[in-house]
Amino acid sequence: MAVFFYGCVTLDGYLADKAHNLDWLHQTGEPEETGYSDFYRAMDVTLMGRRTFREVERLNCAASVYPTTENYVFTHGDLSQDGFTAVSGDVAEFVKKLGRDKNIWVMGGSAILAPLLNQNLVDHMIIQVAPVLLGEGIPLFTRDETRKRFYLEEVRKYGQFAELRYGRIA
Amino acid sequence: MAVFFYGCVTLDGYLADKAHNLDWLHQTGEPEETGYSDFYRAMDVTLMGRRTFREVERLNCAASVYPTTENYVFTHGDLSQDGFTAVSGDVAEFVKKLGRDKNIWVMGGSAILAPLLNQNLVDHMIIQVAPVLLGEGIPLFTRDETRKRFYLEEVRKYGQFAELRYGRIA
Repeated sequence: MAVFFYGCVTLDGYLADKAHNLDWLHQTGEPEETGYSDFYRAMDVTLMGRRTFREVERLNCAASVYPTTENYVFTHGDLSQDGFTAVSGDVAEFVKKLGRDKNIWVMGGSAILAPLLNQNLVDHMIIQVAPVLLGEGIPLFTRDETRKRFYLEEVRKYGQFAELRYGRIA
Repeated sequence: MAVFFYGCVTLDGYLADKAHNLDWLHQTGEPEETGYSDFYRAMDVTLMGRRTFREVERLNCAASVYPTTENYVFTHGDLSQDGFTAVSGDVAEFVKKLGRDKNIWVMGGSAILAPLLNQNLVDHMIIQVAPVLLGEGIPLFTRDETRKRFYLEEVRKYGQFAELRYGRIA
């Protein structure tokens, strides 16, 4: 099993602007210009928070966006979207129970990522940095993380995205 | 004239921890492992805020750290350190008056950088990302910046630093 964070942030560390818009991201480039397809093909499970799921819901054909993975949304409510399963409880416990042979993509937000980081459960972080300052928005990292060091494996340039690939230090 | 930001931040965007310590930086690597020497040789002027200067003051032989540049510190107080000049007033006006043939290194912190960014006076940003999450600290970017896009010129890997080089979009 390996747990991945994979996602795009602005240069000032935001996943989305305050209104949860991603237009700055679409203005930077398309996922096709990165290694996204290869990444997604290797995943078995996606995990996301309720607000990240709201972004997915806005897409046309949301049900087909993540077709080959089991897709879980942490929420206390119900989901009306085919292809996604509502779950609740402790994120770290959920991840541990998913099984040892699964590759798990943690999509965010920080309420999902922070507890996994703090329990040292994130094996890989693959971050695309968009060349944009938003000034304010929804941060990827919050003050809930404890101090932690990763291993920088590789840097790549995909069009206007700088991709930083990190591994967990055992 | 060109205005540069050049400096190191953590993966979660901090210039220093809350106590203004940089031990996480020294644990990541030494400036010699990056292109720092070439960068510094090209600079004519350094500009820093009072708190950044305090970091410099802690060094042995602070007077010799930036030997070939004119070094200015924005502060309302006096400086007791040879080789540095206290200045005050509007940062952007100061930069404009420095002269058209100067290369200016803006070292931070955000109180110096944000007004220059907002007046579109920063020509180059060269950021080394250290593979560390601090959780809290002194951020490079604050909520004082307005939305702005840069041009990603290059990404490099220097040991455990990921260096992202950006240019201003005219």
